[in-house]
Amino acid sequence: MENGIYQYGVGDAIDTYMYIKSSTKGIASNGKPFLSLVLSDKTGEIEAKLWDISEADERQYAAEKAVRILGEIQNYRGRNQLKIRNIRVTTEADAVNLADLIQTAPISQDEMMQTITQYIFEMTNPSIQRITRHLLKKHQAEFITYPAATKNHHEFLSGLAYHVVSMLDLAKAIAVLYPKLDKDLLYAGVILHDLGKVMELSGPASTVYTVEGNLLGHITIMVNEIGKAADELGISGEEIMILQHLVLSHHGKAEWGSPKPPMVREAEVLHYIDNLDAKINMMDRSLDKVKPGEFTERVFALENRSFYKPQFQK
Amino acid sequence: MENGIYQYGVGDAIDTYMYIKSSTKGIASNGKPFLSLVLSDKTGEIEAKLWDISEADERQYAAEKAVRILGEIQNYRGRNQLKIRNIRVTTEADAVNLADLIQTAPISQDEMMQTITQYIFEMTNPSIQRITRHLLKKHQAEFITYPAATKNHHEFLSGLAYHVVSMLDLAKAIAVLYPKLDKDLLYAGVILHDLGKVMELSGPASTVYTVEGNLLGHITIMVNEIGKAADELGISGEEIMILQHLVLSHHGKAEWGSPKPPMVREAEVLHYIDNLDAKINMMDRSLDKVKPGEFTERVFALENRSFYKPQFQK
Amino acid sequence: MENGIYQYGVGDAIDTYMYIKSSTKGIASNGKPFLSLVLSDKTGEIEAKLWDISEADERQYAAEKAVRILGEIQNYRGRNQLKIRNIRVTTEADAVNLADLIQTAPISQDEMMQTITQYIFEMTNPSIQRITRHLLKKHQAEFITYPAATKNHHEFLSGLAYHVVSMLDLAKAIAVLYPKLDKDLLYAGVILHDLGKVMELSGPASTVYTVEGNLLGHITIMVNEIGKAADELGISGEEIMILQHLVLSHHGKAEWGSPKPPMVREAEVLHYIDNLDAKINMMDRSLDKVKPGEFTERVFALENRSFYKPQFQK
Amino acid sequence: MENGIYQYGVGDAIDTYMYIKSSTKGIASNGKPFLSLVLSDKTGEIEAKLWDISEADERQYAAEKAVRILGEIQNYRGRNQLKIRNIRVTTEADAVNLADLIQTAPISQDEMMQTITQYIFEMTNPSIQRITRHLLKKHQAEFITYPAATKNHHEFLSGLAYHVVSMLDLAKAIAVLYPKLDKDLLYAGVILHDLGKVMELSGPASTVYTVEGNLLGHITIMVNEIGKAADELGISGEEIMILQHLVLSHHGKAEWGSPKPPMVREAEVLHYIDNLDAKINMMDRSLDKVKPGEFTERVFALENRSFYKPQFQK
Amino acid sequence: MENGIYQYGVGDAIDTYMYIKSSTKGIASNGKPFLSLVLSDKTGEIEAKLWDISEADERQYAAEKAVRILGEIQNYRGRNQLKIRNIRVTTEADAVNLADLIQTAPISQDEMMQTITQYIFEMTNPSIQRITRHLLKKHQAEFITYPAATKNHHEFLSGLAYHVVSMLDLAKAIAVLYPKLDKDLLYAGVILHDLGKVMELSGPASTVYTVEGNLLGHITIMVNEIGKAADELGISGEEIMILQHLVLSHHGKAEWGSPKPPMVREAEVLHYIDNLDAKINMMDRSLDKVKPGEFTERVFALENRSFYKPQFQK
Amino acid sequence: MENGIYQYGVGDAIDTYMYIKSSTKGIASNGKPFLSLVLSDKTGEIEAKLWDISEADERQYAAEKAVRILGEIQNYRGRNQLKIRNIRVTTEADAVNLADLIQTAPISQDEMMQTITQYIFEMTNPSIQRITRHLLKKHQAEFITYPAATKNHHEFLSGLAYHVVSMLDLAKAIAVLYPKLDKDLLYAGVILHDLGKVMELSGPASTVYTVEGNLLGHITIMVNEIGKAADELGISGEEIMILQHLVLSHHGKAEWGSPKPPMVREAEVLHYIDNLDAKINMMDRSLDKVKPGEFTERVFALENRSFYKPQFQK
Repeated sequence: MENGIYQYGVGDAIDTYMYIKSSTKGIASNGKPFLSLVLSDKTGEIEAKLWDISEADERQYAAEKAVRILGEIQNYRGRNQLKIRNIRVTTEADAVNLADLIQTAPISQDEMMQTITQYIFEMTNPSIQRITRHLLKKHQAEFITYPAATKNHHEFLSGLAYHVVSMLDLAKAIAVLYPKLDKDLLYAGVILHDLGKVMELSGPASTVYTVEGNLLGHITIMVNEIGKAADELGISGEEIMILQHLVLSHHGKAEWGSPKPPMVREAEVLHYIDNLDAKINMMDRSLDKVKPGEFTERVFALENRSFYKPQFQK
Repeated sequence: MENGIYQYGVGDAIDTYMYIKSSTKGIASNGKPFLSLVLSDKTGEIEAKLWDISEADERQYAAEKAVRILGEIQNYRGRNQLKIRNIRVTTEADAVNLADLIQTAPISQDEMMQTITQYIFEMTNPSIQRITRHLLKKHQAEFITYPAATKNHHEFLSGLAYHVVSMLDLAKAIAVLYPKLDKDLLYAGVILHDLGKVMELSGPASTVYTVEGNLLGHITIMVNEIGKAADELGISGEEIMILQHLVLSHHGKAEWGSPKPPMVREAEVLHYIDNLDAKINMMDRSLDKVKPGEFTERVFALENRSFYKPQFQK
Repeated sequence: MENGIYQYGVGDAIDTYMYIKSSTKGIASNGKPFLSLVLSDKTGEIEAKLWDISEADERQYAAEKAVRILGEIQNYRGRNQLKIRNIRVTTEADAVNLADLIQTAPISQDEMMQTITQYIFEMTNPSIQRITRHLLKKHQAEFITYPAATKNHHEFLSGLAYHVVSMLDLAKAIAVLYPKLDKDLLYAGVILHDLGKVMELSGPASTVYTVEGNLLGHITIMVNEIGKAADELGISGEEIMILQHLVLSHHGKAEWGSPKPPMVREAEVLHYIDNLDAKINMMDRSLDKVKPGEFTERVFALENRSFYKPQFQK
Repeated sequence: MENGIYQYGVGDAIDTYMYIKSSTKGIASNGKPFLSLVLSDKTGEIEAKLWDISEADERQYAAEKAVRILGEIQNYRGRNQLKIRNIRVTTEADAVNLADLIQTAPISQDEMMQTITQYIFEMTNPSIQRITRHLLKKHQAEFITYPAATKNHHEFLSGLAYHVVSMLDLAKAIAVLYPKLDKDLLYAGVILHDLGKVMELSGPASTVYTVEGNLLGHITIMVNEIGKAADELGISGEEIMILQHLVLSHHGKAEWGSPKPPMVREAEVLHYIDNLDAKINMMDRSLDKVKPGEFTERVFALENRSFYKPQFQK
Repeated sequence: MENGIYQYGVGDAIDTYMYIKSSTKGIASNGKPFLSLVLSDKTGEIEAKLWDISEADERQYAAEKAVRILGEIQNYRGRNQLKIRNIRVTTEADAVNLADLIQTAPISQDEMMQTITQYIFEMTNPSIQRITRHLLKKHQAEFITYPAATKNHHEFLSGLAYHVVSMLDLAKAIAVLYPKLDKDLLYAGVILHDLGKVMELSGPASTVYTVEGNLLGHITIMVNEIGKAADELGISGEEIMILQHLVLSHHGKAEWGSPKPPMVREAEVLHYIDNLDAKINMMDRSLDKVKPGEFTERVFALENRSFYKPQFQK
Repeated sequence: MENGIYQYGVGDAIDTYMYIKSSTKGIASNGKPFLSLVLSDKTGEIEAKLWDISEADERQYAAEKAVRILGEIQNYRGRNQLKIRNIRVTTEADAVNLADLIQTAPISQDEMMQTITQYIFEMTNPSIQRITRHLLKKHQAEFITYPAATKNHHEFLSGLAYHVVSMLDLAKAIAVLYPKLDKDLLYAGVILHDLGKVMELSGPASTVYTVEGNLLGHITIMVNEIGKAADELGISGEEIMILQHLVLSHHGKAEWGSPKPPMVREAEVLHYIDNLDAKINMMDRSLDKVKPGEFTERVFALENRSFYKPQFQK
């Protein structure tokens, strides 16, 4: 497993431990039930079908279990699938560490928290600094483990924190080049923009939307949280409204979920940084699966485009 | 003035008191300054130009002043305009009551508050009732005088409260016919849906958007207010989130400013009641100005349509 | 069957009579034919699959038959399905009345005709009254049994008439609140707006589009019918054109099939009443299937939204 | 006037007779009234302003009058304008024939009617032939003088008939190349498609929309007329519905006013022929005003494009 | 096979030779592999499934093979399918000529080249003539065999050349009726507009997009080729840019792949001719499969419309 | 003039030298001609009107002249305008250096060329390096003086080069953070992406579109140039096509003028860098004109948004 699931080619035999990321029951058109599994190791994921299952199978091969798999890689409509020959749930005897099978951020949680703390430390506007620190602290436990989304980009353990760290570094680099940008506002916007996801989403794994997530959404949730934080900390002044505006407008357009478009310079830049980091993340993950001279699968969240890896790039 | 400004036809002489609703300076293409006035009496408004003005004129004929006008009605590009022959600001000697020159809701403020209070009284869910009563009370002074918008519909003194009262009556009539509707939720939704406008708009007259109104908007402002009200009243439970959802979704679609579409039955009905009342108000005001067999001017907020008054309607 | 098909939960055993609303042959991906059945009782409908069918089965389990079913409720992709263990066509010995298995309007046909007749009786404009009465009489036999659509809303026996009756009551309630509305026009518009569906659709059951329905559509068909009715009754005057406009514009926008948008006050209100009644009908039917604290399935005709039933609603 | 108004260049003196196509009163920003005139000769039209007018001027220089003009060509925002030095209404002494000053089709009315009659004569399906002949005869007087539109394309005397004649020739040429096309249907579709304009528009000159034109539109009007014609002639059969479909669908898309898109081969081809002829007409008229190596003005009805006349074309 | 595959009705037995146009492996929901075949004869194509295949089957029944088929016509979701009872690859003993099983243009390649050559010969502008001749010659080998597209229209052997020949005839017919059109430009535009497809597509059969086709597209490829041709032939002057513009703009709109809309008269006409010929081709092929009084299948490239064949057409 | 034109407030007297950036003749609605001037100094620009002009005035106060102005700042519809009291063209006696009155990039042309040259020097792929160097050299004279556009962003002397330099620095900063990005490709893409503007636009001042710019556009022009450069340099390989793709796709979407969307990682990033730099430039220039606590004018190219400068920013 050294190299991970994407290193295998069509026809290769598989004998490895994997994590069941999701397990969905279907009914085949011959009337028999089956399971569609998404299996992961630390480096990526692959689909597999388990045909003709019993009710015991359904319970056993549920999400968040570790399994031992024998099988081989098949091609199905241009995508690799894992054809399962043998599957069993791991026992203590396997001595498998679940954490080794789950996709996670490439930086440790501690390191990420340290980086973010440093960025907050550098802020000079005390209102912005205190609100940001307060809200991060309040939701830190979830923030550090949640994915950034249920699918599309940074959809792995600690994906949310990793997305924020990358964006902070990007924000800093841009602020150096365009010195009129207000660093405090930009950093605070980056840290808070998706923090509402800890209430919008159900948890770090098998993530779905909460009722609150469906009816209000992470943007509205966090705008409210900023208002509450200001009340609790006894902070008044325009900083609160501007921070709320940054969160409110970070999707860029009404059609994309921001009832107000960015109307403050740093809000516009935040929207760009968010998009750019998410898109590079999606392109990188997609291009990692193909060789030079090939096109990737279509990526739905990138307007359903395929990407080409030039032959002169390794 | 018995019958009001819309009763005059082209060529009719005017000798009356009017209120300057707005006054905008322009520069004519001969380089000389002029004022574009919107003048109102209790029943409606009309445009007028004041040519070749001095700086004193500019100060004198500003918004929110009452004036005595001599002139006549002209037709300009299919719209009536008032050609001013003589204008002066009123003095005490004129014994003019400003309130008699301003367009306002056709029901008194007291009567409207009584009606709304009665609807709140009829609510049976204590959480919904308490939050609604609390927020109405908190913003009552502004609520009862503000227009519902700076233009388009109910853009007159107490227009917001009048819009709410009409919608409450409509909500009740609909709830009788569709008994599965939750009356408490519907009434609370009607009362709260536009209440954020008291912070989005600058005041009852010469109304413009506040900075908060521009950057957050009345929807986000009121969703926050509901959260704060619940905190202050110590109310928890799903009612808060559902009320927030009703306010959040009442524009119906992301493109129209609601980041979440209605996903609760009463939210969808609220959206319809809001639209229906606003549209009937706009059509009525527009059709009042034309005779049977004629088309109205185009109404921008009604997709720029003209409306026809059939000959067999009086 | 007292409580109907929606009262059963996943795992419940079923032993009941049902009506085959539709029966579609498919070919399973093992190459064998099967039938997708939509089965109904008086209260609702459910899907079921019949695997590995013979040609005799195909003929026997066709639409519009009554059957005796043994089976159980399964969950498939979040929707209930009926897993058939045993099925047979009913015989005389079963003493089953087909009408008891078919979804139909909750009011009797006689009662509905009486209500509509009363509304026509109340009209004061003789031209509008005579045209409306003439066209209703001409198409009454179909009107009283047809569904309002092949799917989406009011898609049951007498659904069209039921939709009209609900809209008439809604129109009356609204006209009371907005007295400038012309009741005659509004009632006539309600009665005529979808009457063309009796020529657009093939019949009360197993409903499909006719050629005329496909090439002209119910709006154009009824606009023509109004013209013919006026000729036959020797009626002239603007009422004819205005009634044609109400029918023509009742979808509200060109994109939705109305080549002219509403340009008469009552046409705009008709469009709202039509939408509101259809949407409440769809939401009610969808929410009836879920418990408090749950979301409904996505409803395609409601912009593919899910609806949430708050926990505090029963 | 030999060569017409487009032959004059900026700075050229004008001394000629012209026709007042339209006359619109404006109020200059110095408060004084003026007239915006559109003046035409047989070959084209030009704008002119008449400043500081009296009420007598307004009555005198109204639409549909012939005038003697002295003046010169000016350039205003890239368009030629006629600067009037002297203007007077013509008298008998001028011996000016109004018909010589009005833009009209380049073929005589008789010739056009003969051509159309010949195409009807060539039809072999008696139902299609009789309906087409009946409707053309019924509306012939208006048909032969009306413009095809109030602006955009073929907006001149007999423009409608000229558009139909061009389309018939185009239909014939296409039918020769694609022999599966049904010539009868195509010719009938061409002749009837815009015939409703004789009721949608007010007349051959100073053309505006009628009430019926606004509320129903020429498409719906003509679909009704076809139904009536069939009744009067006692014709039944699918031909009627198909002709109605051709007229109904000839704008191609719901957004463009056709509630049903073309669903018959000849309906699709009719839509293309209509567009192609209208667009070539607009491009030709626009390109006639510029020299090789120049761009035309933007043409609103051609998606606001400018067209370039290559240097190698004369 | 006299009459071809579309002459067979549901239930008819088939015993014939066919060509495998494409062969796609799937995995049935019982986990077993199968092949989806598109089989053609000279007149058309039909789908068929081959269940439970071995790896040898997969290799054997690949695209571009000829096969002998026994089976029967079935109806599946309203489309005819061929149910295979027996299939084998042809041997020399069958004496089957592959060319007799492949859909191809109804005119011979020689005849088409002669027609095109004649049109080039008729050109009078030497620059346009030389560039057109040069580019056609350069790519003639591919041009004469390629399809016009991978699907939708003219997707058969020599479809590209056939599309060009039809368009040239159409261009000539139109140019006769509108004499201001520049024939040279129009003919050159027709010949060059899709010539870039010989580099965009992979070949005459089993056609897919090349990398260059994906990243640049046939429009950009051909615009570059025109520039190179001018350099090689030492031609300068506006003709080159205008030809490039014709190719660049022939899709009509940015959304459809033309970064510049047609801004030269002949470019606009080229766009129409291209569309009209493609659409008539698609309608004809679709209507050939149905009887009078029936609707065709939905045609995706014609906005997903169905077309109706009137009963009075044969 | 130390501080530039934006430092003056309403009512301030002006006595300074300025450059006439553009001069457009209009006709006032009293029939008299006037000039609309855009005047600039090194820091920005302002509008002014010159009323009642003679033909001599028109010639004298044309674009690209330097003038001495006496006047004062006025407010007109929320924008500052310069009211001219006295104006004259400068003479040698004024000793005014034109270059001191023109807006230009804040870095010298030499410095910018040095920076760009350094980026080319750092490239490691020889094909990419040689093509980039060749094309830059070929068009260097125009490149270093042209604006990046006729309006919207970087619309000043050397704006194109300045935009490229900013983007290169941004590209470098991003490439450090996302090491999978191909620096060579990114730098080359930045340098070439808008280079076609030297042929699309007419020159460094009074800039308009050329015929080639209108009919082909800078994207198509540069894609052709890359092909020619490769031919001239004898370079083959995928680099050429990929560079062409980067230029072709840099507007991001078909609707925005890129017939192919970015399908290579660096193409997507190039599109973002381009947008981000242009938008920050536009926001900065707009926000420079307002004080903390104010909104800017609406900026058309930023979706017509206003931007707010928070009170806590200086």
